[in-house]
Amino acid sequence: MSTSIPTDHPIHAYISRRWSPYSFSEKPVEKSDLLCLFEAARWAPSAHNEQPRYYIVATKEETQEFERLLSCLVEPNQAWAQFVPVLALGVTKLNFSYNDQPNRAAFHDLGLAAGNLLFEATSRGLHVHQMIGILPEKARELYGVPEGYEVVTAIAIGYQGENAKLPENLKKREAARKPRKPLSDFVFSGRWNQAASMVK
Amino acid sequence: MSTSIPTDHPIHAYISRRWSPYSFSEKPVEKSDLLCLFEAARWAPSAHNEQPRYYIVATKEETQEFERLLSCLVEPNQAWAQFVPVLALGVTKLNFSYNDQPNRAAFHDLGLAAGNLLFEATSRGLHVHQMIGILPEKARELYGVPEGYEVVTAIAIGYQGENAKLPENLKKREAARKPRKPLSDFVFSGRWNQAASMVK
Repeated sequence: MSTSIPTDHPIHAYISRRWSPYSFSEKPVEKSDLLCLFEAARWAPSAHNEQPRYYIVATKEETQEFERLLSCLVEPNQAWAQFVPVLALGVTKLNFSYNDQPNRAAFHDLGLAAGNLLFEATSRGLHVHQMIGILPEKARELYGVPEGYEVVTAIAIGYQGENAKLPENLKKREAARKPRKPLSDFVFSGRWNQAASMVK
Repeated sequence: MSTSIPTDHPIHAYISRRWSPYSFSEKPVEKSDLLCLFEAARWAPSAHNEQPRYYIVATKEETQEFERLLSCLVEPNQAWAQFVPVLALGVTKLNFSYNDQPNRAAFHDLGLAAGNLLFEATSRGLHVHQMIGILPEKARELYGVPEGYEVVTAIAIGYQGENAKLPENLKKREAARKPRKPLSDFVFSGRWNQAASMVK
């Protein structure tokens, strides 16, 4: 499962190898590796260099903190994420700091930073599984996230590995790699829904 | 300018080397490279595997198409982007296809795909400069982007290079690499605004 998928065009192995497991090994993530993941996120570009992305992190060893963070996930995600060594919440700031006007790129730039984090993780043999299935308002309350900030994602980080405790339905889902639309379905030119000549 | 920035923690060179130039060389981008950039975006993860990201592309050789795409940028961005070999618009689909409910990750997942595209570009010696300064409704009209989709970003792609035609103010901005907040400002634990122990 750590081999690359067959892509239509050659891409870097750290992109083609990346996938989102449900089954994580119990092996903890070194603090030095975690720091590098956030450092990678730090250097992502952002509109007006706002750097709107924030993270709340908990490692499995910090039992209480981990439980608290886990409780911000919807139950189907808790079923597998409870076994993960590191959990984080991804938060974004909605307005620009320089003029307090809405930042249209707020969610986008959190995603962009996640892209960097994912890539750095893959380069270190780590796997990441992001979730949109969270309870944002519960997280706001539990952590005191102020108005003007939005909790968007949860991020599971660890090493992929067989987990005997994983529910059967997730073990099955684990086996299948999700397909992708062909380029001609989403790379257009001239007008909407007209495949660019290069992808025809 | 193609060397890595001094990061606080070691990260992959394709992340630390990445930056967003204003000055692009006239050298065109090979179609085969462009395809790999979109292929990289294609393999980004997305909530419910929705793959909400779409692109509208124009290369400099397609004069009319390029002008049309350029006209969707705000003027300060047109000042430098007119010299770029490839421009694209990044579009996202707002609702999930499987249930037509709002996708909270729509903008996030466009950003995540952009992260892959950026990384693949850097690995090929290309530079990318993304812009939030666009005219989304003009783009919607010109390209017939349907309701339910949102034009979010413009993406300039090419090789970095001296551009004598670039306005002086941009030449100056070019020289400075933008600083980043320290990790302790955005990696929290336990409660909002409390730096995680690992980043202290």
